[in-house]
Amino acid sequence: MAVTKNLACFLVNSRYEDLPLEVRHEAKRALLNWMGCAIGSTHQETVACALAAIKPFAGPAQATLFGRNERLDILNAALVNGISSHVLDYDDTHSRAIHTSSAIYPALLAYSEWQQLNGRELLHAFALGVETACRIGLSVSPGHSDTGWHITGTLGVLGAAAAAAKLLRLNEQQMIWALGTAVTQASGLREMFGSMCKSLHLGSAAQKGLQAALLASKNFTSSDQGIEAPAGFAHVLASTFNPLAITDGLGKRYELPLNMYKPFACGLWMHATIDGCITLSHAHNLNPSNIARIDIRVSPTALEFTGKPAPATGLEGKFSLYHAAAVAFIHRSGGEAQFADAVVNSPEVIALRSKVVTHADASIGKFQSDITVTLSDGRTLHHKVEHALGTLERPMSDADLEEKFRGLVEPVLGAKQAGDVIAKCRAVESLSDAGELARVTVPRQ
Amino acid sequence: MAVTKNLACFLVNSRYEDLPLEVRHEAKRALLNWMGCAIGSTHQETVACALAAIKPFAGPAQATLFGRNERLDILNAALVNGISSHVLDYDDTHSRAIHTSSAIYPALLAYSEWQQLNGRELLHAFALGVETACRIGLSVSPGHSDTGWHITGTLGVLGAAAAAAKLLRLNEQQMIWALGTAVTQASGLREMFGSMCKSLHLGSAAQKGLQAALLASKNFTSSDQGIEAPAGFAHVLASTFNPLAITDGLGKRYELPLNMYKPFACGLWMHATIDGCITLSHAHNLNPSNIARIDIRVSPTALEFTGKPAPATGLEGKFSLYHAAAVAFIHRSGGEAQFADAVVNSPEVIALRSKVVTHADASIGKFQSDITVTLSDGRTLHHKVEHALGTLERPMSDADLEEKFRGLVEPVLGAKQAGDVIAKCRAVESLSDAGELARVTVPRQ
Repeated sequence: MAVTKNLACFLVNSRYEDLPLEVRHEAKRALLNWMGCAIGSTHQETVACALAAIKPFAGPAQATLFGRNERLDILNAALVNGISSHVLDYDDTHSRAIHTSSAIYPALLAYSEWQQLNGRELLHAFALGVETACRIGLSVSPGHSDTGWHITGTLGVLGAAAAAAKLLRLNEQQMIWALGTAVTQASGLREMFGSMCKSLHLGSAAQKGLQAALLASKNFTSSDQGIEAPAGFAHVLASTFNPLAITDGLGKRYELPLNMYKPFACGLWMHATIDGCITLSHAHNLNPSNIARIDIRVSPTALEFTGKPAPATGLEGKFSLYHAAAVAFIHRSGGEAQFADAVVNSPEVIALRSKVVTHADASIGKFQSDITVTLSDGRTLHHKVEHALGTLERPMSDADLEEKFRGLVEPVLGAKQAGDVIAKCRAVESLSDAGELARVTVPRQ
Repeated sequence: MAVTKNLACFLVNSRYEDLPLEVRHEAKRALLNWMGCAIGSTHQETVACALAAIKPFAGPAQATLFGRNERLDILNAALVNGISSHVLDYDDTHSRAIHTSSAIYPALLAYSEWQQLNGRELLHAFALGVETACRIGLSVSPGHSDTGWHITGTLGVLGAAAAAAKLLRLNEQQMIWALGTAVTQASGLREMFGSMCKSLHLGSAAQKGLQAALLASKNFTSSDQGIEAPAGFAHVLASTFNPLAITDGLGKRYELPLNMYKPFACGLWMHATIDGCITLSHAHNLNPSNIARIDIRVSPTALEFTGKPAPATGLEGKFSLYHAAAVAFIHRSGGEAQFADAVVNSPEVIALRSKVVTHADASIGKFQSDITVTLSDGRTLHHKVEHALGTLERPMSDADLEEKFRGLVEPVLGAKQAGDVIAKCRAVESLSDAGELARVTVPRQ
């Protein structure tokens, strides 16, 4: 089956009017959530390091860096905004665990700003990028992730390329080449979790995806079967491949409504645990000093990703169930503040995390957690989280998302400007120049 | 074993004086051969397409594009010069089939030109980059290539990162991060052979390798075990891993003397066949119109890479034993001219290539070919090439390399300027500003 060609044909012929209303609405929810994450992290060390390294080589001031005064060429803007989108690990996630927006929107908004494209084209290209990344991801699941790939990196570049190619209005052959140029640059290893490189995977995906579309627009060629060929993406980077997951129901069924948003500033694998610990803490008005032991049962995969018993930094804390449970009981929260270096290294948190015992249990779902707290007096309290807050079964409302946005953005831009960014996001479909979305994030004097 | 750390320790502590004379000499031979390939292809369509796509976004004019008047920022110069290095598929190859120079030198020379570093630092960093790429390549051979990776792309970024990190004089921790940032961006699929993306793999490796070193210089972190960790490079991208191939004899035994240079403008897999056909043609003064059938026996791998029976373009011709044998008999040559689109599509060549019958024979070595020609009168002629010209057993001499260089560069720069570039390459060890190497390639009015 000509998978790459069939996909390209769909992407090129799709019209905005074809998108169901719920897909358009979800594209707008994703936009607000993504911009909050990118602006909220703009002063993080990871972003500062990357910017210091890249800035001497950047081109014309074509696109805005969110929440900053600098402007870079669109390829480097996509790189840096892609990094900042993911630094807090607070960005959105398709229910099959691909971070959805962070590689795609930075590529699209940089190009839209430069070319003054309208908001509808932006949303449309985004929805198609998500469709591409998620469908290809599903076609190689679980053999792709199991191999050790950071699938947001490897699939992100495909989504960004497809989306950017749509925005550039490429023809079918050029779309095929853009997809091929993207698959042959797909990269990102799970080994980098806990280091700055994890965010680089998204920045690089955004940059390389946009570059792939730009190359294809000049008729730079690749294979016509980049996804499905024997030495192509699916067979080289995965042990399983179901091409029907890519082509079946294209244009009839969309992946974007399966997008999830995080109430907590860490990987989804820890959400049920944080949610459950906060629930127990409130329900029994627990004093952390009365806790003798915390037993947490999660899926083996969740534990593989989040099993760091003694994190040394906030970044490492985002991969530690031990830390997550400790702060959930002590702070009754799991926001960005709970993953500050100082919190990870506070004696109270270290003392409580040492009382956490984790168990890998194949009977537990990947977004579930089973928590038993043993108190100093010997009593035990139990709570099982079937569906963590933020999952499709318990989604964040539009109001929840706005509150999350304000929590991230107000410390950077203040309440007034945060409100202005929200207003632009809400009005995206009527913007004749989507670049307004980016420029409204530049800090006012 | 702490493979990444041990390698980084060696790279950081190596001094130019430690390099054996034969390694320094080979670094100079590689420099001349590489510059010839890069200059000779500077007007190819692949380079033009890439440059057209990239130029609107490039930064300050920090580094020269070989053989052209444009200057770009060092990251984009590394990208474009990396692409042009490989477009003709004429660049050098380590005996285990990694293209050696094309991802490393473009990164190094761009940075050297910008920072006015001297020629010895350039050669030293290059030798260490080759050592890194080849040793890591050997550690995952053959399971890495067999998976479907274009190993020049995946290993090139590691070599470029190590070399650039040496040039940037990074400390051991930063060198570890540079290696980690490179391994997590390693990419390139064999599926792209025959398309422009094959050259992009090298350009991208040069660019990403240099970027990895620049990021590490600003303390952008990665894993400390990027090569050897369970979700690191070796285990995710290969089915076999021998860490001793990386660490054993570091600084005592060097890979660069195993470098090979191509007399023919295509993959090494076709060299023995071209060599043998030319030899037969000369020995028997063959008229191609008297040939009824050509039987070629090569290794199964050689045939896998070069089995295109009916190439439509010069680029595809570089992956066609059928085409290679035809032009070797008709033109008695295998230079760049023999892979022009017009030659691939000439009726005479098409007629003769249709008489080629290929056989995969596991008893034939990878750089060997066994050729039997059946003439119209029924006679058969046989020749087996044990060692193709350009292999370690029959290396190109310094004079051969200079002749190859002139053949590539004179059509672009003229004989006088080609001679000036050769003189600069010969004097590289005494250059206080290695950027002279790049600037001497700018066409004079």
